[in-house]
Amino acid sequence: MDKNLKYTFDKNNEMIIDGCNALNLAKKYGTPVYILSETILRNRCQLFSDILKELYPNSIVSYASKAFCCKAIYNLIKEYGFSCDVVSGGEIYTAVKAKFDNNKIFFHGNNKTLSEIKLALKNKIYNFIVDNYDELETLEDLVKKDKKLENKLNIIVRINPGVEAHTHEYVQTSKTDSKFGINLESGEAEKFIVRVCQNNKLNFMGIHYHIGSQIFDTKPYGLAAKIVMEFIAMLKKKHNIDVKIFNAGGGFGVWYTNKDPNLKDEDYKKFIKATVNEIKNGVSKNNLIEPTLVIEPGRTLVCEAGFTLYTVGNIKEIKGVRKYVSIDGGMYENPRFALYQSAYTAVKCKSTETKQEKVTIVGKCCESGDCIIKDTKMEKLNKGDVIAVLSTGAYHYSMASNYNRNPVPPVIMVNNGKSRVIVKGQTYEDLIKYDI
Amino acid sequence: MDKNLKYTFDKNNEMIIDGCNALNLAKKYGTPVYILSETILRNRCQLFSDILKELYPNSIVSYASKAFCCKAIYNLIKEYGFSCDVVSGGEIYTAVKAKFDNNKIFFHGNNKTLSEIKLALKNKIYNFIVDNYDELETLEDLVKKDKKLENKLNIIVRINPGVEAHTHEYVQTSKTDSKFGINLESGEAEKFIVRVCQNNKLNFMGIHYHIGSQIFDTKPYGLAAKIVMEFIAMLKKKHNIDVKIFNAGGGFGVWYTNKDPNLKDEDYKKFIKATVNEIKNGVSKNNLIEPTLVIEPGRTLVCEAGFTLYTVGNIKEIKGVRKYVSIDGGMYENPRFALYQSAYTAVKCKSTETKQEKVTIVGKCCESGDCIIKDTKMEKLNKGDVIAVLSTGAYHYSMASNYNRNPVPPVIMVNNGKSRVIVKGQTYEDLIKYDI
Repeated sequence: MDKNLKYTFDKNNEMIIDGCNALNLAKKYGTPVYILSETILRNRCQLFSDILKELYPNSIVSYASKAFCCKAIYNLIKEYGFSCDVVSGGEIYTAVKAKFDNNKIFFHGNNKTLSEIKLALKNKIYNFIVDNYDELETLEDLVKKDKKLENKLNIIVRINPGVEAHTHEYVQTSKTDSKFGINLESGEAEKFIVRVCQNNKLNFMGIHYHIGSQIFDTKPYGLAAKIVMEFIAMLKKKHNIDVKIFNAGGGFGVWYTNKDPNLKDEDYKKFIKATVNEIKNGVSKNNLIEPTLVIEPGRTLVCEAGFTLYTVGNIKEIKGVRKYVSIDGGMYENPRFALYQSAYTAVKCKSTETKQEKVTIVGKCCESGDCIIKDTKMEKLNKGDVIAVLSTGAYHYSMASNYNRNPVPPVIMVNNGKSRVIVKGQTYEDLIKYDI
Repeated sequence: MDKNLKYTFDKNNEMIIDGCNALNLAKKYGTPVYILSETILRNRCQLFSDILKELYPNSIVSYASKAFCCKAIYNLIKEYGFSCDVVSGGEIYTAVKAKFDNNKIFFHGNNKTLSEIKLALKNKIYNFIVDNYDELETLEDLVKKDKKLENKLNIIVRINPGVEAHTHEYVQTSKTDSKFGINLESGEAEKFIVRVCQNNKLNFMGIHYHIGSQIFDTKPYGLAAKIVMEFIAMLKKKHNIDVKIFNAGGGFGVWYTNKDPNLKDEDYKKFIKATVNEIKNGVSKNNLIEPTLVIEPGRTLVCEAGFTLYTVGNIKEIKGVRKYVSIDGGMYENPRFALYQSAYTAVKCKSTETKQEKVTIVGKCCESGDCIIKDTKMEKLNKGDVIAVLSTGAYHYSMASNYNRNPVPPVIMVNNGKSRVIVKGQTYEDLIKYDI
């Protein structure tokens, strides 16, 4: 399969995803169904692995589980030697059940509950991305009370460098209004880290920051890394503190529609190089130890590997207004239009004509906001047609609900013509099993 | 319990919900937890039952299940003789398992799938709120093929009267841009109904419309009913068609914050009276048969009966910017801020002081948009405090997801000092049971 082609059409004009015929997948597993191309996913994993090996071998790729968390994904990313980020007891539980190496798990979150922290410790997960003073106090208390924890907890402090990047834009602010992290510019981050270092029962390991998501520009990466390296140099000079881990977060943009840049392998390399260059400059200029670089791709690894297959249902044309095409899914399995007005691309799985028309693809939920794609141009659709919505590997299954009492679809991994269920779909019986 | 008081404080300044101490509930069931006051819920059911009995006895209250669907709710509303609306196979399955009278179930939705329609028919659910031509064709085909279905299917046609009301405002348009229903003004609705009536194997029963949600004004109700009654008079005069069911939908506003009018029983009565008056006027003026009035409250019945209890976690004050208070829930159990920027009211469950401060209450999900209440004034909060967010009975449990791999909280029914689980909370084991 060509690395740059997410799907192809066979001689019958039927869509092929990773060697599997999309219509056959729809027939075999029903619709709606989440499809994940193992080849695309592995290509992305290999890409990030290769980039880091080349640019900065002293590095770790830590998969941001929240994009898509299940045992099969953990098993796959383990093969690349990756670490993973977890943000809840549920993600910890899943990673542990997938026998993920406890030393390679980083525990993130602005409000880790005590029971989640205890679940982590019970499973020897000691890498904490600490977000705030209250969390630090909790950890200080725990190591104080439990001698066995002394010098076990690795503390990485989440800071706010004041650079925020979002699709095609970024801003630099001195006072970041965010529930995450400790402000750098105000001096809070310095105080915080000094306090961590003064506790000789905690291991201060380094710094984490994350500047946003869906970033298509190298500039904010370089700028944030530069600011953070200056901060690290100050920590060394003023407090003799060594930063061993430099965690630059994720946020690398992915393709949803043709309005997004279709990033190539070299583009991702540029993003990381922007960070790497600043680290190397800062290290040599200030005579610092070389930190381990951590990057946290989530969406970037899984998103473009994902396809959701739907069957077209009722079609309604309101003359002079809009043509609504209903599919058999909706905001319960893809809430991203409802949440963020996210744009998507849909493709008819059996191409029969070249003529295009403008349609709005909506779900089956009883809610006006239940839309998948507003005003998209595509081949004329008829009831019963199967369509694929592209780039649905991240924040789809992981955000799915049972809204309108709809069952969550299964996730099917496809690879070179073979398919297998990696997450079973829910049945109606599953929906009422909690009812008393 | 006073009908107008949703909660009280006892002599220790601890919150009492329907006779139960909120702190004890939090201790017994853990947090986050959904609490549902049976008394408030029953008062609302009784209110609508009483209003209709007084104003228009030939009527049906049909509970819009999508607001909150579970077996316990169906069992409760059955006691009031109510019908229910279902919008999916999952809601049908739940209603059937709760032994809901099949004759009292109305099947709604813009894209009922064939398998859902078959599930309905298998369970002798024959009341279809038909949304569009494609659905009508499906039903026409089914009665054509299956003699046993002849004259069984009751068809209520969802029309768009061109009146759209939303919080505090309404608009009247001739071309409604909606995925729901058939346009009235364009003549489409007339043609559609004539077609239904021409099929002597289908029972044309009447008309459904729904003008919006969170409506606080009587005007749009009266206006929509007037327009629809004129349409009904035309159907009679021109086509000799009798409309036996007049389904005016729901949308009655509820209280979330003090910015919303706190509607009294009389206000709800006024809303229904506005519709009833137009029906009566239209019937007498045009010598029509008196239709059965159906109203569809969902949110109005369950919303204000609901409370979500949280434990306060980490608190972060960014000087001069904002004070963030994290709670142990978030957008996975209340996505309504993320979806609609919905406003809520939070109350500290043990009142200790009168001084208030402005805080932003955020969840524990790793996402900036994971907020519950932005900039609300409340008593100073400390880590470990329990707070109640009010009016969470509708579209909370029903919209809950496992985002960030968080388990869905349990739902607890409280009544006059007693509490019982009506929906079990998920465990971590539940989260991975679909993983292969």
